[in-house]
Amino acid sequence: MSAPRFEMRVARLRDVMRENGLDAIAIAPGPTFHYITGAMFKLLERPKVLLVPLTGQPVMLLPNIEAERWKSLGLPTGLITWRDETGFADAFAELARQVPAKAVGIESLALRYQEYAALARVMSDARFVDVQAAVTVLRAAKTEDELALIRRAIAYSEAALEKTFATAKVGMTESEVQSVLFGALLEHPLREVPECVCVAGTATAQPHGRARQDYRLKRGDALLIDFAIRCDGYYADITRTVFLETVSDEHRAFYETVLRANELGRSIARPGMTAGELDDAVLKVLEASPWGKFILHKTGHGIGLDVHEPPMVMRGNMQLLAPGHVITIEPGLYDPAQLGVRIEDDVLITEDGAETLTSFPRELMIIG
Amino acid sequence: MSAPRFEMRVARLRDVMRENGLDAIAIAPGPTFHYITGAMFKLLERPKVLLVPLTGQPVMLLPNIEAERWKSLGLPTGLITWRDETGFADAFAELARQVPAKAVGIESLALRYQEYAALARVMSDARFVDVQAAVTVLRAAKTEDELALIRRAIAYSEAALEKTFATAKVGMTESEVQSVLFGALLEHPLREVPECVCVAGTATAQPHGRARQDYRLKRGDALLIDFAIRCDGYYADITRTVFLETVSDEHRAFYETVLRANELGRSIARPGMTAGELDDAVLKVLEASPWGKFILHKTGHGIGLDVHEPPMVMRGNMQLLAPGHVITIEPGLYDPAQLGVRIEDDVLITEDGAETLTSFPRELMIIG
Repeated sequence: MSAPRFEMRVARLRDVMRENGLDAIAIAPGPTFHYITGAMFKLLERPKVLLVPLTGQPVMLLPNIEAERWKSLGLPTGLITWRDETGFADAFAELARQVPAKAVGIESLALRYQEYAALARVMSDARFVDVQAAVTVLRAAKTEDELALIRRAIAYSEAALEKTFATAKVGMTESEVQSVLFGALLEHPLREVPECVCVAGTATAQPHGRARQDYRLKRGDALLIDFAIRCDGYYADITRTVFLETVSDEHRAFYETVLRANELGRSIARPGMTAGELDDAVLKVLEASPWGKFILHKTGHGIGLDVHEPPMVMRGNMQLLAPGHVITIEPGLYDPAQLGVRIEDDVLITEDGAETLTSFPRELMIIG
Repeated sequence: MSAPRFEMRVARLRDVMRENGLDAIAIAPGPTFHYITGAMFKLLERPKVLLVPLTGQPVMLLPNIEAERWKSLGLPTGLITWRDETGFADAFAELARQVPAKAVGIESLALRYQEYAALARVMSDARFVDVQAAVTVLRAAKTEDELALIRRAIAYSEAALEKTFATAKVGMTESEVQSVLFGALLEHPLREVPECVCVAGTATAQPHGRARQDYRLKRGDALLIDFAIRCDGYYADITRTVFLETVSDEHRAFYETVLRANELGRSIARPGMTAGELDDAVLKVLEASPWGKFILHKTGHGIGLDVHEPPMVMRGNMQLLAPGHVITIEPGLYDPAQLGVRIEDDVLITEDGAETLTSFPRELMIIG
């Protein structure tokens, strides 16, 4: 992150302040913090917060052990540090002195109660306003630089998925299959291992299930793998569902229904359509099938610096899709007694339609 | 988690309520949630909270897509679900109807502003009390079952560290070294990849630095690797600092100073001592050296279901060490112009002293 880009992004934050009648916004480490500063700082128990005033220099409050790293970023900010021995109360008081504010924007998903309470204590006459949505919108339309990172994450994901499906077979545990995936992913310079759903059999009907060490893949099982990785901060998110050795006619029809919903969504997505309309059209395909009661979730979500960010592809969401948005299209059906199927692609909204960024095959695949 | 163990742990939560004059405690997914329920649920944008009343059945509020997984736990709780299409406001209102409360305990590190605000909206006449510390204390003294998981995580960690130091050499990038570590760790059934600091050269002076793709190890560099992994929820946390091919006399003396502090800490830790006294004694070793100004942090922290939990081994902390506590002893010195050294072990407080659980060699090691 160069200082000029930081200044530009801070200026966009200040637009949000003006629109919302705020005189500061507090940003804790997370996707927006990364967007503004270009840096990822981890949140454990120690509070860290960047307070950006409407006018004047932003001020970073940070544990002293990370001061050198902050300075090395070369950003034009003030810096207030605190030490474990003395605690952070004085540092927050100093922050309030340097940035007096009556109306403070916060991100409800990035700010914990600890940081909120510490701010509220030293700004006792300030009101706090949730600007999560407004701030997140700032980073919705991706630049070419950002798209390049998403495309790279997708390429890594698809290569690893290919290797995993080529290796998975009846008798392996879900955990063993997941280890193959992780091993393949970590051949790349990733900062962390993915959030991953890797489940088989009836567990595929739990959209957020976790790989088990004690469930072995059986002939005829569905195997659902859903994972999101990030490269230099930017996510790819993909899901495929395959079958072990054989598939019943009913399961095939179930799968084909989800696939039709996925294909419809990818074919109609375009700028100017609301995110809600897209979800509506996709869900209608599922609802019109014999398995409409097995719908559990919306069609998708934006991806970028966060794995789930606006626009949420969800009924009733009036946000317009716009060029540069990257969304997932991931319809699913989940029959608790039998199986779940989800097929998830990453889709870029273009000037006149949409480009599917993920290219992994979607036709029903039988492996093992 | 069996239902009886759940009931037992809920009873301990209720002790905290009585001590603090509360009539409910809200627990969002995180270490305490895991401790109480035996389950790990991931927090993305969708709110999830378990509200435990002083009397009556706890109630879980959850997105509908995770209802099946919750039910499969077989815990004696009520369940309120919400769907993406309708949002979670009504679900929180229903939660407040089922669990009317005037004084609600919350965990300041586990609860985000989103969940706090949603609760505060429907419990407009309730006061919220931060019980993070009291609740965390419940899980401080580990049982034999819990220690077995920590020991297993340590065994995996040390095997992977041994392989990494055997492989790292001049010319490799920090990222490449980290990939060796990750590959070795993921031979084990871990749920996720570690938080990891893997840095060399002057970057070792940043206690929380991250592996770079563009820095190649040089002859004479320090290489510092610090990572924490968890097995079935329980963490191990270890740091070693080694040197590439050669070490200067000054760097050796710097290293030996940190090692003396580590050894002293491990030799004096015992029940009945305060965590602050332990930190004090360890820091004095560093302060008495020529490099006292390069101290950046306290001696350590508890580990368990969280990677940093009480007792914090920090000056002024009056918490008594007690049998069953597992703490890190990880003194460090950080000279920004030259190098940082940290040597971190995991230490179990026993009935009459301490047992160092980590066994990786601490003598200055030259590799490559």
